[in-house]
Amino acid sequence: LAGGITIALDAMGGDLGCEAVVKGAGIARIRQPDVHYEFHGDEALIAPLLEEDAELKAVSSIHHTDVAVAMEDKPSQALRKGRRVSSMWLAIDAVKQGRAQAAVSCGNTGALTVMSRMILKTMPGIERPAIAAIWPTMRGESIVLDVGANVVAEKKNLINFAIMGEAMARTALGQPTPSVGILNIGAEEMKGNEDVKGAAEFLRDAELDFDFQGFVEGDDISKGTVDVVVTDGFTGNIALKTAEGTARLIGDYLSSAMRRSWASQLGYLLARGAFNVLRQRMDPSRVNGGVFLGLNGVVVKSHGSANAEGIAAALDLAIDMARNDIIKKIAADLEQVQDARDGDAANEAAPAKATEPTPA
Amino acid sequence: LAGGITIALDAMGGDLGCEAVVKGAGIARIRQPDVHYEFHGDEALIAPLLEEDAELKAVSSIHHTDVAVAMEDKPSQALRKGRRVSSMWLAIDAVKQGRAQAAVSCGNTGALTVMSRMILKTMPGIERPAIAAIWPTMRGESIVLDVGANVVAEKKNLINFAIMGEAMARTALGQPTPSVGILNIGAEEMKGNEDVKGAAEFLRDAELDFDFQGFVEGDDISKGTVDVVVTDGFTGNIALKTAEGTARLIGDYLSSAMRRSWASQLGYLLARGAFNVLRQRMDPSRVNGGVFLGLNGVVVKSHGSANAEGIAAALDLAIDMARNDIIKKIAADLEQVQDARDGDAANEAAPAKATEPTPA
Repeated sequence: LAGGITIALDAMGGDLGCEAVVKGAGIARIRQPDVHYEFHGDEALIAPLLEEDAELKAVSSIHHTDVAVAMEDKPSQALRKGRRVSSMWLAIDAVKQGRAQAAVSCGNTGALTVMSRMILKTMPGIERPAIAAIWPTMRGESIVLDVGANVVAEKKNLINFAIMGEAMARTALGQPTPSVGILNIGAEEMKGNEDVKGAAEFLRDAELDFDFQGFVEGDDISKGTVDVVVTDGFTGNIALKTAEGTARLIGDYLSSAMRRSWASQLGYLLARGAFNVLRQRMDPSRVNGGVFLGLNGVVVKSHGSANAEGIAAALDLAIDMARNDIIKKIAADLEQVQDARDGDAANEAAPAKATEPTPA
Repeated sequence: LAGGITIALDAMGGDLGCEAVVKGAGIARIRQPDVHYEFHGDEALIAPLLEEDAELKAVSSIHHTDVAVAMEDKPSQALRKGRRVSSMWLAIDAVKQGRAQAAVSCGNTGALTVMSRMILKTMPGIERPAIAAIWPTMRGESIVLDVGANVVAEKKNLINFAIMGEAMARTALGQPTPSVGILNIGAEEMKGNEDVKGAAEFLRDAELDFDFQGFVEGDDISKGTVDVVVTDGFTGNIALKTAEGTARLIGDYLSSAMRRSWASQLGYLLARGAFNVLRQRMDPSRVNGGVFLGLNGVVVKSHGSANAEGIAAALDLAIDMARNDIIKKIAADLEQVQDARDGDAANEAAPAKATEPTPA
């Protein structure tokens, strides 16, 4: 497959097992020509599934391992049993070896974070990678990061998230000059913790080639006020799951409301085309897949409970990132920002805190 | 009005002005007998509005001031111009003076936080008050706190939020033994930042008379997994606004889906009773009002853009908190926890970190 893209799949990590992964690849294959799929997992399970889809089989290879990282494993346990041998490790390693241009896993987020970082290493200037998610909005789609790779983010991490998210938005959303905002509890400049204030100040003053819009609030995410919403992984993960929970709650309200009278039941029948459209738009698998940004390679984290459609969406995203060589774009942007950062660091170094005891 | 409750209203702080406040009190009056309303604000604006509602006028008094805190004022500006003279200050001060049992304001959250704290002072053992919100769930309603009084919360603050939220749940939700969870990015014990882990460990081990369920995730809020969800004000505020934004996005999807064909339009007409029920359940004014917990007095923060219905909901909440003497309940609970906390502090003191340079 000269010129094509190879995607390495961790076929063992998800809640629904190999079947969802192979079927997901089958759906993605129809949409995405010229892609090779490298399945890492139990050959005895994967091979029969590929037999059912001759066209997928023709563009696939199986790399056998029967070691899987479990959802409940702590990252340290996952490493002890899975280092160099688990389907998750081997899929990421295919990217490191240059055999694949992206890895996709539905597995344990903590283990995936640790293994990806260990194998691919962070890009120069990046301490903490982030997971970026695509979020449906009133204007289309936005990117939100970090949604859970880290529990804390300092000023410099938030700045890097902004740079990386902006590069991803150009690729994934096709926005030539994406707008960027930092999530905060008020749009006013004086609100928020020191890290969000510091990051906003830097991005406002750094004169980067960058459409920085300052602070945005929680309700701005769904409004689509900006193309890229920057936050720490703790807040971002909770915001993402809160939105999922709210969507389910409203779906629940809606279906119980529709059952309350014969008129509403009839109305529901007449409008079922519209409800199907709504259901599709609210379907979390439609925008499944978080991209690890800041590593020397593309790794996409699919929802653990993703079905075949969800996995296909994660594969689309991985293929898009690989085709557009997102890593090179981010590297170029990080270089652009490094000068501004050096200047900023020099300013900050001046009033240094005397934390070291002075020798007597 | 012997035996009755007096509520002090900041009539000037909201986006919709005096009219929404007075009309909101008019709605609350019908539902809540035996309540006196003390309006703080411009008499020239309030008096004509009361003329339109003789029954409300009969249980109301006007305390004139024409100084209002503006939405865009920083807390320091609000204090400079509004200390002792603004409608917000005077409404809170009525609680301090014992004339009112609760104050309600739709005004600037930052100014309300600072003034409430300055006038009423925090309860013994409480460093940071919290704002508690009532959140609709699949099981009914839950309490989430802090939703924005503070931008950071340490372990001890989170523990206090749990204690105060549990006391509020007994009153506001009528739950005899409310369950409590701490918001985190995973239900596993090893996840999260040090503060959430420390608070969870304390609550797990403290043998309080308390149904502590450990960690919950963002989607657990709407599920109603626990009655009280504890989080820092930064995350809580963003989660709350993200949920509001998601509800609006889905409402938007729904109405555009219903317009897409004649069948769906007809279906919508037939089911409009059901849609009205849905709209009511999704109406943010239905559960309007955040309660400041941890102060020596009840202050309720209404949404700045609340209409009369929303203000009535905030008044219901304030009256409920005042009738049930929430402050006394919280004080009793805080005493109960103080012993456990003292033990914990003694344990923590033992392996103290050697952060101080030892004298040479």
